[in-house]
Amino acid sequence: MQTQTLERMESNVRTYSRSFPVVFTKAMNARLTDENGREYIDFLAGAGTLNYGHNNPHLKQALLDYLASDGIVHGLDFWTAAKRDYLETLEEVILKPRGLDYKIQLPGPTGTNAVEAAIRLARVAKGRHNIVTFTNGFHGVTMGSLATTGNRKFREATGGIPLQGAAFMPFDGYLGENTDTLDYFEKLLADKSGGLDTPAAVIIETVQGEGGINVAGLEWLKRLEKICRSNDILLIVDDIQAGCGRTGKFFSFEHAGITPDIVTNSKSLSGFGLPFAHVLMRPELDKWKPGQYNGTFRGFNLAFATAAAAMRQYWSDDTFERDVQRKGDIVADRFKKIAAWLTEHGVEATERGRGLMRGIDVGTGDIADKITGKAFENGLVIETSGQDGEVVKCLCPLTIPDEDLQQGLDILEESVKQVIA
Amino acid sequence: MQTQTLERMESNVRTYSRSFPVVFTKAMNARLTDENGREYIDFLAGAGTLNYGHNNPHLKQALLDYLASDGIVHGLDFWTAAKRDYLETLEEVILKPRGLDYKIQLPGPTGTNAVEAAIRLARVAKGRHNIVTFTNGFHGVTMGSLATTGNRKFREATGGIPLQGAAFMPFDGYLGENTDTLDYFEKLLADKSGGLDTPAAVIIETVQGEGGINVAGLEWLKRLEKICRSNDILLIVDDIQAGCGRTGKFFSFEHAGITPDIVTNSKSLSGFGLPFAHVLMRPELDKWKPGQYNGTFRGFNLAFATAAAAMRQYWSDDTFERDVQRKGDIVADRFKKIAAWLTEHGVEATERGRGLMRGIDVGTGDIADKITGKAFENGLVIETSGQDGEVVKCLCPLTIPDEDLQQGLDILEESVKQVIA
Amino acid sequence: MQTQTLERMESNVRTYSRSFPVVFTKAMNARLTDENGREYIDFLAGAGTLNYGHNNPHLKQALLDYLASDGIVHGLDFWTAAKRDYLETLEEVILKPRGLDYKIQLPGPTGTNAVEAAIRLARVAKGRHNIVTFTNGFHGVTMGSLATTGNRKFREATGGIPLQGAAFMPFDGYLGENTDTLDYFEKLLADKSGGLDTPAAVIIETVQGEGGINVAGLEWLKRLEKICRSNDILLIVDDIQAGCGRTGKFFSFEHAGITPDIVTNSKSLSGFGLPFAHVLMRPELDKWKPGQYNGTFRGFNLAFATAAAAMRQYWSDDTFERDVQRKGDIVADRFKKIAAWLTEHGVEATERGRGLMRGIDVGTGDIADKITGKAFENGLVIETSGQDGEVVKCLCPLTIPDEDLQQGLDILEESVKQVIA
Amino acid sequence: MQTQTLERMESNVRTYSRSFPVVFTKAMNARLTDENGREYIDFLAGAGTLNYGHNNPHLKQALLDYLASDGIVHGLDFWTAAKRDYLETLEEVILKPRGLDYKIQLPGPTGTNAVEAAIRLARVAKGRHNIVTFTNGFHGVTMGSLATTGNRKFREATGGIPLQGAAFMPFDGYLGENTDTLDYFEKLLADKSGGLDTPAAVIIETVQGEGGINVAGLEWLKRLEKICRSNDILLIVDDIQAGCGRTGKFFSFEHAGITPDIVTNSKSLSGFGLPFAHVLMRPELDKWKPGQYNGTFRGFNLAFATAAAAMRQYWSDDTFERDVQRKGDIVADRFKKIAAWLTEHGVEATERGRGLMRGIDVGTGDIADKITGKAFENGLVIETSGQDGEVVKCLCPLTIPDEDLQQGLDILEESVKQVIA
Repeated sequence: MQTQTLERMESNVRTYSRSFPVVFTKAMNARLTDENGREYIDFLAGAGTLNYGHNNPHLKQALLDYLASDGIVHGLDFWTAAKRDYLETLEEVILKPRGLDYKIQLPGPTGTNAVEAAIRLARVAKGRHNIVTFTNGFHGVTMGSLATTGNRKFREATGGIPLQGAAFMPFDGYLGENTDTLDYFEKLLADKSGGLDTPAAVIIETVQGEGGINVAGLEWLKRLEKICRSNDILLIVDDIQAGCGRTGKFFSFEHAGITPDIVTNSKSLSGFGLPFAHVLMRPELDKWKPGQYNGTFRGFNLAFATAAAAMRQYWSDDTFERDVQRKGDIVADRFKKIAAWLTEHGVEATERGRGLMRGIDVGTGDIADKITGKAFENGLVIETSGQDGEVVKCLCPLTIPDEDLQQGLDILEESVKQVIA
Repeated sequence: MQTQTLERMESNVRTYSRSFPVVFTKAMNARLTDENGREYIDFLAGAGTLNYGHNNPHLKQALLDYLASDGIVHGLDFWTAAKRDYLETLEEVILKPRGLDYKIQLPGPTGTNAVEAAIRLARVAKGRHNIVTFTNGFHGVTMGSLATTGNRKFREATGGIPLQGAAFMPFDGYLGENTDTLDYFEKLLADKSGGLDTPAAVIIETVQGEGGINVAGLEWLKRLEKICRSNDILLIVDDIQAGCGRTGKFFSFEHAGITPDIVTNSKSLSGFGLPFAHVLMRPELDKWKPGQYNGTFRGFNLAFATAAAAMRQYWSDDTFERDVQRKGDIVADRFKKIAAWLTEHGVEATERGRGLMRGIDVGTGDIADKITGKAFENGLVIETSGQDGEVVKCLCPLTIPDEDLQQGLDILEESVKQVIA
Repeated sequence: MQTQTLERMESNVRTYSRSFPVVFTKAMNARLTDENGREYIDFLAGAGTLNYGHNNPHLKQALLDYLASDGIVHGLDFWTAAKRDYLETLEEVILKPRGLDYKIQLPGPTGTNAVEAAIRLARVAKGRHNIVTFTNGFHGVTMGSLATTGNRKFREATGGIPLQGAAFMPFDGYLGENTDTLDYFEKLLADKSGGLDTPAAVIIETVQGEGGINVAGLEWLKRLEKICRSNDILLIVDDIQAGCGRTGKFFSFEHAGITPDIVTNSKSLSGFGLPFAHVLMRPELDKWKPGQYNGTFRGFNLAFATAAAAMRQYWSDDTFERDVQRKGDIVADRFKKIAAWLTEHGVEATERGRGLMRGIDVGTGDIADKITGKAFENGLVIETSGQDGEVVKCLCPLTIPDEDLQQGLDILEESVKQVIA
Repeated sequence: MQTQTLERMESNVRTYSRSFPVVFTKAMNARLTDENGREYIDFLAGAGTLNYGHNNPHLKQALLDYLASDGIVHGLDFWTAAKRDYLETLEEVILKPRGLDYKIQLPGPTGTNAVEAAIRLARVAKGRHNIVTFTNGFHGVTMGSLATTGNRKFREATGGIPLQGAAFMPFDGYLGENTDTLDYFEKLLADKSGGLDTPAAVIIETVQGEGGINVAGLEWLKRLEKICRSNDILLIVDDIQAGCGRTGKFFSFEHAGITPDIVTNSKSLSGFGLPFAHVLMRPELDKWKPGQYNGTFRGFNLAFATAAAAMRQYWSDDTFERDVQRKGDIVADRFKKIAAWLTEHGVEATERGRGLMRGIDVGTGDIADKITGKAFENGLVIETSGQDGEVVKCLCPLTIPDEDLQQGLDILEESVKQVIA
């Protein structure tokens, strides 16, 4: 594999090619192939962007059909037949069956664009600047989103501009099992000199992806919604990584039975790995004036086509949903087993997650890196997350065949044993 | 045409569908077709995103071939064969022949992501926070970029957070023909109490797109580069709208013979309307640590394929470049004629532009809107820009057939006369 | 009493004249006299500015002697004999006996100027922007200090500029008796994605004045110092209200046996109610360049004279210190008794404080206001503090005669009973 | 003279004691005396704080009388007889005869406190954050004021926090004699994408003190007022250095016949060198809620006494005013002569100023420092200002006896000749 050009020309900022220093050429569902023809099981799936697998044939067909028709590929925010179909499908297949009533904003096609639009809308709607976010939260790295992202690596790379407009609260479980961290939040909201500026909104991931597969309890989420309602604060669920079925429901917040005021989706929203994002908002919050927030790639027509196809294919009934939950249980069981084995062998480890968003916390990034490094040698692409990279996480395609899932888990287990032994 | 769903579900923030309230279904090169089968000449071309036209067959073929091969569509910032081919083509076809030596960063796929990365890199590299930007500049609306964007509509929609980290200088010509605005900039740089924090970088569009097709003089640009060099300030050319051939050269700064330290490209970079952006930087500026700036859609493989095809197809020799300049002259001549007619009929108007980035300043947004509205009735999609929307601008595909170009110009001229008569 | 001019001409921002709507003319030690000749016991003492009483004769003599000598009154930061005497006295009487080694900065003459200088010095010395401050902390209202002040009333009066550069942590006891709030701080410091930017410094009042006479435990303060040391974070004690003997020691942090890196003093520092402040810093932290922080009234010579006199008069041995502690016990005993009576009569109340900085928390600002209003009718000037104004606080002169102290306490007790009965 | 303690204990930030490294002990009107008994003529006068001279006997008597009466020295913002007398005198002696109708806010006792209060009030009143300030302006160094101060030395000493909330415009004359800099301001105000956020207020010194005795033209000031009125922008005159008679009128803006919406005074306001400041505001702008802006030393009663005495003594008729203008002419004539001599001897120099606020621009700080250094050797305390310290400035007491004024000017002229010869 020729990598000199890649090494010479690409900025030092590159990261995944350091963990997986091969040149990939092809991919299908849960399998990646490198230039030498070697295959890898993919437990990373574009960090949750490929919930329906690589080159999903249903979605590829939709894409090819659209291209064959000479449909509009790029049209700024023109009305197109593809956009209309996307909106109708979203309403019929996703929103109505869940009793949800949202308007849709199509910001730039990435997660951070959606978050920037969402928090700015919240500020405009409420006339307040402060956004409450949570420890270990990740919401993107453009300057507006970055203020709500906890990671120091990114926060310190602003070149000297302190981030503003956000305040951090402890996520569920952050202060130990016996402390409900919302007590602190509620106390600060009521305290006229506690230092917390009255927030416009709270932004939260129900399961924190980059932060280490930290799972907010369902009762905790319900209480959070209640606190927001009674304090006239908007609730934004950032469902960019946990949404689109990752936790076993289309929206991750469905498990808790809550209704956010604003929702962001991206990553797997197009279904095919195409850049795409939307913001959902309760209709009465739509305080935007025409053109107040823009962007060249707002509303990508190829993504409208694949996203609509994905919704029709996977979300018209609950078959897919149940299958994800079944596979999630398989991963959870194996992860628990691996964690137990690690603990027995002197490495304190625990399993956590929801649906197919699962991790094993092995205590340190050092050990986690050894495990994922060994796994890659053994044919599995898997990454870590958490503040120190201490969580080995599984974000495999939701469509992964059972045999690939088992093989991936086998490789992981074997790699753990090779590293620790 | 059914538009109820679109009107009901899409946020008020929508904008182009207000000027062009039809549902588009198909497009080919410089022609759009709506759901009723009506055709329009396209002088907007995705605000400069479709320099090679809609559904360009060369680029579509590259896309279809890539899809047929089951190539990686989404791979975070994995090394892929498509990325390698993109980098090699960029180096061979674009950089080397122009004597340029840059490293490449692949940020998120939109312009504002590229600008956020570029200005942050400048700050990190220089250890200073201030970015000098220019009156009527547009560099995106995420919070970091927005600080460098002059438009109040966007700046006032932050929900109460003042923008920070940028200072505005008057663009070339802003203080009238007899004032070199760089005198003011140079005076402030030397003044220890002038209020200008020593900048990390200057960011500039050589021709301002959204700002009103304001053209920086070539000598002025050379002097700007010289001021930057002698004050240890980085020069960033934001070539998102003016680049990729729009002004008649691949990079808009080639006309001035300057070499920016950092360059941003997006819009037409993929060639096919796919979301895609890169940042070019002088190698010694690459102060990023691994993973310090990230994003899910950094490096979109379908765009690598089409972008490489576009470079090979259009930039291997100077045929295309000369053709763009020839068409630019056609537009310029006609725009001068229209401007003269307007002036004769009591509407003071002037033509300006470079290459195929051209406008007629008709004095007020009100008149400009009437003209573009009438043009749409007559079958031409054309938009305005400028602080008050007072400039009718032509950003037609560079590949537009001569007969479509003439027809578009005819429609415009006729519309002008209908409006003013 | 003529108050029309005062009501007409003074801005709505006026506050104490609403609680005490009389025109005061004279004052001596702990007694105020209004224009009608009515006397009041003063339990407010300039919110802690008059620790040595009104018109203290020792200090007045020093002032008159200085004026009689035609000494320099205002000299920017000139060297004067008065400044030299101040520095020598501070060193001999205060610093050396306490084993402290500090350099002195003379910022503008108010507390907020001292805090601005202190936190800016910390940022410059550490090259980090973040200052950790605590819930219910008050450190002034100019924009730099205000970021570290918790009170929403002030924070919301910036006219739309979000405050930046500070993060709030829970003060000792904020999360209930069983939670050591420093656990949370320490966890966040260690957490790479917890959202806490590594601080340059912590700023704390050992007893929060405006925040409600909240007393930091001595072990908690020791642990805070230890956390700062082991994380390379500076410890700033804001001793503007709690210092100069108020808690029974010259510096409030002496009780805990800790040594801050930076200390701010103002309020009672001049001893005579003259505007005056200084910042003490460990010598190695003095990273200022000449003239980097300035102000017209830095170093007020009349205050040098009275401040030196106050140190010599009251701090040359421990007589004064022991007397303050004795009086503090008197107040504490009576406040406990009053609190117990309140609780018995259905108003849950508690006493707290250190030295002569003491309060009764009566639960709501409404009840507290009724008590202080009634007390004023009965001849006692006393104020409230706390987030809702729920704490009736005693900040009487440390020099108050025992009979005045008893009389003041009697009035308070009687007023409480009149209000609640 | 013993200076070891001073050198050892005072922070490096000290500045004037570097230019004048002696210990001063006494002062009377325009003469300072050092510890060795040497006398100096004072052309600095506390940087404009001692307009009525050191230890002015009229004002000292008012101070001694107040002290003898046991009047309240410190009373937070209590109503006192001294405050009432101050307000009445201000109204009768200053405001009414000038046709001015203002309410008064008493912020902390320094200039920067007054500026923080003034700009915050403007923001609250207008609901906008932006304050327009001018090149070479100086308005204080606390974080709010510092944003409006041009000096890089201070701006870079924030420890990494970019200043926000202000935008700089070129002061009168900044772009050369033939350019009216308000054209640029007016163009930017009208320009919807010029990058200037609609300001709440403009803040200006009519003669810039620290910035180099830059004098705004009277017609220019009138036009500025007009621009503010027609754009609904408040006009704040920062009269801290130029006010209290320095330019020959009580308020420096009287020369131009304009009426600011908000005025700040400090420095010479107390008359005796006591820390004191106020903010004047048009009554309808008084949008403060009670207690929204506070500070321990707001309203210093000793200063009320001396300030009222100063107004009565010097401003009851126009005798003093005319005398200041007469002396200003003397200084101007001599400065012109010196400037001409310098120019003849190869040092391009010019005189400028208004009233007794006058300077000679000698081109570089290096030459200016040599001149003021030599002058100090010769018995004259005089300082420089300007962005490079290139302006030798005269801010002598307005009460300086003619013989002292002549002697000071003689020393300066002689020193210039010694340095240049």
